[in-house]
Order: sequence, then structure tokens, then C-alpha cells
Amino acid sequence: MQTITQKLVENTITKRATQTHKGSFGKILIVGGNDQFGGAAILNSSAAVYAGCGLVTTATHPSNFTSLHARLPETMVIDFTDDQAIKTMLNKVNGVVIGSGLGEDSSSLKILKFVFQNVQSDQYLVIDGSAIDLIASHNLDLPDAHIIFTPHEMEWQRLSGIPIKEQTETNNRAAQQKLNAIVVLKKHHTEIYTNQETYQLLIGGPEMATGGMGDTLAGMVGAFVTQFTDNEINAIMSAVYIHSFIADQLGKTQYVTLPHQLIKKIPQTMLKFSQKAE
Amino acid sequence: MQTITQKLVENTITKRATQTHKGSFGKILIVGGNDQFGGAAILNSSAAVYAGCGLVTTATHPSNFTSLHARLPETMVIDFTDDQAIKTMLNKVNGVVIGSGLGEDSSSLKILKFVFQNVQSDQYLVIDGSAIDLIASHNLDLPDAHIIFTPHEMEWQRLSGIPIKEQTETNNRAAQQKLNAIVVLKKHHTEIYTNQETYQLLIGGPEMATGGMGDTLAGMVGAFVTQFTDNEINAIMSAVYIHSFIADQLGKTQYVTLPHQLIKKIPQTMLKFSQKAE
Amino acid sequence: MQTITQKLVENTITKRATQTHKGSFGKILIVGGNDQFGGAAILNSSAAVYAGCGLVTTATHPSNFTSLHARLPETMVIDFTDDQAIKTMLNKVNGVVIGSGLGEDSSSLKILKFVFQNVQSDQYLVIDGSAIDLIASHNLDLPDAHIIFTPHEMEWQRLSGIPIKEQTETNNRAAQQKLNAIVVLKKHHTEIYTNQETYQLLIGGPEMATGGMGDTLAGMVGAFVTQFTDNEINAIMSAVYIHSFIADQLGKTQYVTLPHQLIKKIPQTMLKFSQKAE
Amino acid sequence: MQTITQKLVENTITKRATQTHKGSFGKILIVGGNDQFGGAAILNSSAAVYAGCGLVTTATHPSNFTSLHARLPETMVIDFTDDQAIKTMLNKVNGVVIGSGLGEDSSSLKILKFVFQNVQSDQYLVIDGSAIDLIASHNLDLPDAHIIFTPHEMEWQRLSGIPIKEQTETNNRAAQQKLNAIVVLKKHHTEIYTNQETYQLLIGGPEMATGGMGDTLAGMVGAFVTQFTDNEINAIMSAVYIHSFIADQLGKTQYVTLPHQLIKKIPQTMLKFSQKAE
Repeated sequence: MQTITQKLVENTITKRATQTHKGSFGKILIVGGNDQFGGAAILNSSAAVYAGCGLVTTATHPSNFTSLHARLPETMVIDFTDDQAIKTMLNKVNGVVIGSGLGEDSSSLKILKFVFQNVQSDQYLVIDGSAIDLIASHNLDLPDAHIIFTPHEMEWQRLSGIPIKEQTETNNRAAQQKLNAIVVLKKHHTEIYTNQETYQLLIGGPEMATGGMGDTLAGMVGAFVTQFTDNEINAIMSAVYIHSFIADQLGKTQYVTLPHQLIKKIPQTMLKFSQKAE
Repeated sequence: MQTITQKLVENTITKRATQTHKGSFGKILIVGGNDQFGGAAILNSSAAVYAGCGLVTTATHPSNFTSLHARLPETMVIDFTDDQAIKTMLNKVNGVVIGSGLGEDSSSLKILKFVFQNVQSDQYLVIDGSAIDLIASHNLDLPDAHIIFTPHEMEWQRLSGIPIKEQTETNNRAAQQKLNAIVVLKKHHTEIYTNQETYQLLIGGPEMATGGMGDTLAGMVGAFVTQFTDNEINAIMSAVYIHSFIADQLGKTQYVTLPHQLIKKIPQTMLKFSQKAE
Repeated sequence: MQTITQKLVENTITKRATQTHKGSFGKILIVGGNDQFGGAAILNSSAAVYAGCGLVTTATHPSNFTSLHARLPETMVIDFTDDQAIKTMLNKVNGVVIGSGLGEDSSSLKILKFVFQNVQSDQYLVIDGSAIDLIASHNLDLPDAHIIFTPHEMEWQRLSGIPIKEQTETNNRAAQQKLNAIVVLKKHHTEIYTNQETYQLLIGGPEMATGGMGDTLAGMVGAFVTQFTDNEINAIMSAVYIHSFIADQLGKTQYVTLPHQLIKKIPQTMLKFSQKAE
Repeated sequence: MQTITQKLVENTITKRATQTHKGSFGKILIVGGNDQFGGAAILNSSAAVYAGCGLVTTATHPSNFTSLHARLPETMVIDFTDDQAIKTMLNKVNGVVIGSGLGEDSSSLKILKFVFQNVQSDQYLVIDGSAIDLIASHNLDLPDAHIIFTPHEMEWQRLSGIPIKEQTETNNRAAQQKLNAIVVLKKHHTEIYTNQETYQLLIGGPEMATGGMGDTLAGMVGAFVTQFTDNEINAIMSAVYIHSFIADQLGKTQYVTLPHQLIKKIPQTMLKFSQKAE
């Protein structure tokens, strides 16, 4: 496995060109957050906005609209059961993040299937949380798109069929090849499986072990792949690295670091890395 | 084109007189934010309040009342489909900001038309976002008022008929003259077209390229024209200048600057400029 | 007129005794905030909590419950049309703040009358905003209680019948005597009329001229009279003084000071004054 | 009585092991907050998340979902009258906090009884606020679980039958033995009664005498007993100690300390104590 280095991140988070506008830095559709897990969509969306995505639309349960806007007026909202609205957005965005807090009932499944049917082959598709479990439990076929899975170990077990104890690099790689998608396996020392290579994160600590950290990462991955489009894999690794880097920084003064605290530090951290590029 | 200078801003943001009250510093009605784009109304309204407007009332979709108040208890709310309430407010205010996140369906159009019919000739009327598109797509006549358009390049293309690539000073000026309104054309180096002159902003950077920045500017313009009534054009230029000035300051420590962060810096920035006046 | 001095405030905001609990520092019922002016109830309630009131219950339009709790989980809420709930609370509190954003329709009037019928003679009753106008327009009789009015000049004109230009000390005093209540007349150099004496505030500036400042003061007055019960008039003067003192402090770095910013500085400011007592 | 020492806290809040995940640090179900007292559930839940609990689910009145998520996206929500959802969660958590703002009507009672019937014997069960009063007024039998009561003096009077003036160590101990549960008696110098010993807190001051402080403590106790499982009593004492320790720190600059301010300081404070362990 290759280690994800700070230098790689510095070379990925490049200085923005001046002749740009909000459309230059990615447009993403977040799909997640049912009436029980709305916080996941809030964290997804917040992470995406703070990570520099130019335009973020959040398709979620309507009961989450108000709390989302109370925290983040920078996002637009649509009802995640409104097929027409979803379809319209899928014609405008270059990336989708689906699954955080989506739930696993028939309504969740219907939404997931609809997105799978309408996502476009040149779009990035980050699949997280409930969506991973739904794929596993319903044996869903994957759509043609740039797919990135972000499972934790238990979700990976369900998706790949590999029990946690047998999740070795060799076994994981075989499963990743079969999926033909990038896999970000979240764990102590997160691993990223791509078609070419396996990468490993050596930073991050137990101060991150709290609910919502994964939702935050999924939003960051979505923002980075749609914004730093030169190299998808480097963009993903940079999201993974910065996520843990900030947590470690916060961990110097906090016993536990909350996802919403981490999110607020993304803009400063990205600037620092962008200024160190070779 | 003339450059907007810091000195102009310093001479516009004057020290407040002591014998004043909240009615002395402008009363505005914000009209915007449908059930999908409520964040736009939140940013509009917040920008207006932080920019010193004495009294701000927000006419928006009722689904936005709670998120707005959760962020900004200083505003009053009315249902943007409540004609009577809108009419009552139009008899009390000296300025209106309409269009940010208003949407473009028949309900949005009806609201826009109603405001156009009832706005008064001595009122400032800032027209932003969806309202610009509605005027363009429905060939609406403009009401008699102090009109200020705040389009980005694509909205300006729709309103003026000038394709983005042909948006030269000469072409823009011709279109502005026909509209007989002030046009704030938002772009890299924003341009302001008035009946007399064209002005250009030379500050601001790509850290601003994120959703909601335009809504923020519209609110600031509304607050400034109703507050610094000596010179409407200087008030507009000052809003445009301070908007980008703050973003550039934040950009020294952040890769991207969020609209709500920018808004919170308005009061400090205004004070600094007010203290430098000749 | 006597000037309100800092020394008076220092001697009023005394160090808390150790053998105390939340019931020792006042229990108040806020009644205000209809579906349009919910922000007023939020500012009232927040000011009261930050000013040290032990227990605050907010009776408001139910549409304000969520925004209030999103900003201030320390308050309890009841529907302001729920007579039984209001009555129950009136048996528990030692003070009431009524009128900020209450509105002036028949429902508002009904609520006001109900509180007037059920308030108890030993309770403090702060009457603000819409409640003042309702009393004036409906010639309501005042209940037997420790009444404190907090009008701005226009509200005082309506209540007293004295046009703003004729609001001299002599005229105001005559009107105050007739009302037999304390009157806090909010203006540049706020004046406090009591049965014995007139007091004047010489601090505060135009940075305070923004919507919601009065709601904030009403909440502070409610918290102070129910908390510093040794001397009602000194408590009122201390609230008035600290309100403007904080605004002036914030005004050193801000062109305009928002009510919610002022509110957050109350605990620190109270401590400073409490430590300077003779 | 034994005094709770800082050293005990330092030895309880241990450095986290690196090979851990969010499931390693406790999963709790909060049950509280009716439509009037939603703030209590917000404070409960926030305290639990900031105190490091890995996963927090809040069962509350649905009218509180939005305000809760607006403040704390890290929590999951369920309707506290949804028996099936409660039951599902009770099969996943290792601790329950019930009663803060739960109310005392028949619906509240039904919820309490349902939790008592379904809580498991190896789970921690923190009983606070309304739940204590319901047990007292309805003579409810206690379930088989690790029960911790957190009454203030008046609630303890109702539960134990001992009038406040007669709440001596001897009398309290007798009542605690009968209950066969740990009792955290909140007062000036809070006392903790266990089957073996009585402990006393000598820190904390009158700056804490404000509504919501008890809800905050209940959430912290829940997070600590489910996270520091080596020694339940030490975990409880550490929560009680840190709660007052932070208030005292804030009290150096504030006249009154609000619960939500205290909550935000928990992660830093826990880190400091964890670094001082022997």
C-alpha cells in the first residue's frame, strides 16, 4: 500500500484561477437524510459547501429543510421523493452524493433506484451509508458513472461479503475489482482501493470516533472530485487526508471532535495546503 | 471606465448622527425565497440587517420563516403571497429588494407583478436573481422607481439579449440606457452602469465563487441605498466594494469564503471605512 | 433630572449568594411574538436568560417555538392563546414581560386582556411594544401590579397623548403620574419616570438604531426587576444602563450593533459591574 | 462523606485507545422533551454528544426535531410515542437518559412505563426531571437496570418523601438504600449516594443557578457511564465534577453561565483532565 502524503494534498488543492465563477468549482446534488437521520444530510451538505463546492442542492426529507437552512443558507433544497426535481438537478450537476441517513425502507430504496436510473456516465457518484446497505441487501446493479463507495468496515462487510476480520488488502482488492468502483474503506488507517493501487491514510485518531464523521467525509469527497477534476483519485485522497488532518488538529485541544466543528475548519485548512504547492 | 476607489467608500459610509433612531437608517422589504431557495432570502435579509438597515421585513415562503428567525431574530416576516401585507409594507418602506431565490413559476411571477404595481416612484427597487429572469422571459414592463439590477453575466444575457462574449462596455451601456436603470453586472471585476458613467471594481477574488454571494450583495445594496441617501450611485458602489473587500480579507485565511461569514464582517468593516472619511 | 451613574449599577448588580438555586433569581413569563414578529419574542427571551433570570417561559405563537429553541434551549414555551397554560404560569412567576411583537389584532388584544385579568398585584409587569399601542387604542385599564412601561417616543405619544415635540419632562411627568406606573421612555438619552424622580441615561449611541433593540431592553428589565428585588427602580436603571453600555462597547468596533450580539455580552458585563461594587 | 477530587476525574477520563470506532464510546437513547420543554432534550443530547458519546439518538416530541437538528446535526431523532422505534433503539444502546422535560401528563407516563418495561438489566438508566416526579406521583416500580437518579432537592423530596430541611446524609442514605439505585442529589454541594459510600462535590457556584443546568448534567452522566465503563461510580462523579468545574471556569468571566455555553467547553475540559492522569 502507498501512504497518502501531505505533498500529494498540497499539489491537488491548487490556487484558484481568477477568471472563474461559482459554476467553475463543481455543482453537486446531495441525496440523503430521512425524517430520522436529517443530521446526516446537514453534515453532508455543510461539508460540501465549506469544502468549496460552487453550488450544492440537497434532496432530503422535507422535515429537514428548516434545520438545514438554519445551519446553512448556502444550500438549495428539494424533496427527495420529487422525481421531477431530482431529474432536473441531475441534468445540471457534475456530481452526486447519495446515502447518508437515507434510511433503508421502501421509500429510500425507490429514491436510490431513481437516482441510479438517471445518473449520467460522466458524473461522480459518491455512495455512502444507507445506500451501501441497500445495494447489498437488494443486490442492486450499479449504474454507469464514476462511482466512489465510502463504507465503514461493517458496511463493507455487507457490500463485499468479507467479514471484518478477513478484510485484508488482497480480499478487499478482489472485491473492489468486482465492483469496478473506487472504495474508501473507513477505519483506523483508512484504505482507498482504486483500479490501479491501494492507498492508506496514516493520520487521524480516536477523537474522530463519533456519529456524523462519515457523513462529513462523504460531502468532502463529493466537493473535491467535482472541484479538482484533473485527477479523481488525488481529489479523493485529499478529502480523506484533510478530514483526518483537521480532526487531529482539533484533537490537540479536544477529547472528542464534533463533525460540525471539523467542517468549519475546512476553508482555512484548504488554503494552507494550497499555499504549499510546489 | 472609472475604478471604484476606497476613498469613495470612506466618504460614503459617514459617521452616524447622534439624534437618530431606527427609522433614520432605512426600512426595506425583502421579497424572495420560495420553498426551494429559502437560503437566498436568509442571506438577503441578513446582509441588510448587518449592513445597518434600520428595519427589515422579509416577505418569503412561509416554510422559510423558522430558519430565517433561527438565524436572524432582527427581521420581521410576511407570507410573500399575502398581497395585503405586502401592500401595507410598501407604504412604510423606502426600499425593496426582490428576486433572490424567488423562483420562476406562476406564483413567483404573480408576486413580482404585484410588487411592480404597488412600488412607489420614490422607492429604491433592487432587482436580483429570479426576478431578472422573469422580466426577461415575460417581457415585463418596469415600474416607476429607482431601479437597480444586480445580474450575473448569464442573467444579464437573458435580460439584455447580449451574449456573454459580447458583453462589452459599449453594448452593455446601450442596453442599460434602454432599461433606464442602474445595472450592477456581477463578474470578475464587476461593472456598474449608470446613466452617466460606468464604474469598475478591481478587487474581489475566486474565493467568492460560491452560491449565495449574489444574494448577499443584493441585500447590502438595498441597505446602503436606503441608508446613505445622499448619493444613490455612491451607495451602490460602496456596497459592491465592501462586499468584495471583506471577501478578500477572509480570503487571506480561507480557500473559499461563505456568504454568511462575509455578512458577519460587515459591521466592523463599515466602521473602519467610516473612520477614514476625509 | 438625575443622571444614571455607573456606580448605581455597580451597587445593584451584587455578587450572588452561594446558597441559592435557579428559583432564587427570578421566574418570568414572556408574552409576545405573533406569527409575523416572532423575532421580538426570541430577543426578549434571550435577553432575559442572558441577564441571569433563573427560569424563563415564553408564551408566543406556536410558529415561533422552533426558531426560539434553535437559538435558546434554556427557555420553555407555551402557546400564547392557551389561557390555562398562561394562568398556570402566572401562578409561578414573579414577573411578566408583555407586548414585544404581540401584534395588534383581536387575538393580541384578547391575550393582553387575559394577562391583565390574571396578573397578581405583587408581580412585576413590563409592558412593551404592541401592548402599549393596544392599551392606547382600546383605552384599557391597567391591572394592579408593579407596572413598567418601555415605550419609544411614538408609542409614548400614543399612550400619553403627548406629541413627540411636546414630550418635555414636565409633560411626561404629568402623564406618568396619571398612569401611576414607571415609564422608561426610549430615545436618544433615555428617560425614566418614577413616582419620585426622573432619571436620564447619558450613554448609548446611534449604533443602536436597529430593529429589536427595544425588545432586548424589555427582556433585560424583566430579568433585572425579578432578580434584584431590593430596589425596583435601581434594577430598571441598571438594565437601561447596561443595555447601552454594551452597545457602546460593541460600537467601538462595529458601525451597527445587532441585538443578538448585545445579548451575548450581558453575562460578562454584569460580572464586571458586580466586581466593582463598594 | 468523601470529597470528589480532581485526581479521581483525571484517572477516569483516560486517553482513548487508537483501535476504536464510534461504537466503542457508548450508544445512548435520550427520552425527553415534550412540546413545551423541548429545550431540555436539546441540552441533554448536546451534552451527551460533546461529552464524547459515540452515538446519540433522541426520542422526543416531533415538534422538537427541527430545533434539535438546527443546533446538533450529530444526533438522530425518533418520535417518543413511537413504541416500535423506541424498542428497536433499546436493543442497540448501552444507556438511556429519561425524563428531562418529559412532562407529567398521561402521554409522558405511558412513554416512561414503556421504557421501564423494555430497558435491559445491563443498561445504564439515568432518571431525571419529570420522570422522577412521575415515579413519585404514580408509585412506579423501578425496572432492573443500572439506575441513576439525578433529582434536585424538591424532586428528591417528592421521590424520597423527605422534606428538604430533613435531607440529611442519614435520611438520604436510608432512602437511597430503599431505592437500591445511585442518587445524585443536585444542590449547593451536590451529593452522590451509592450503595457503598456518599460523595460530595465542593466546587460549583451560583453562576450555575439557571434553567437547563440539570438537563445538561443528565446528558453528561449518560455519556460518561456508557463511555467509561470500568467504574460506573467514578464515571458519575467525573460528570458531576466536570459540569461544575466548567461552570466555575466560565464564572470567572460571566455573572451567569448558560447551559449551552457550558456544553461547548466539555471536549476541551475532558482533554485537559485526560492528560493529567497518573
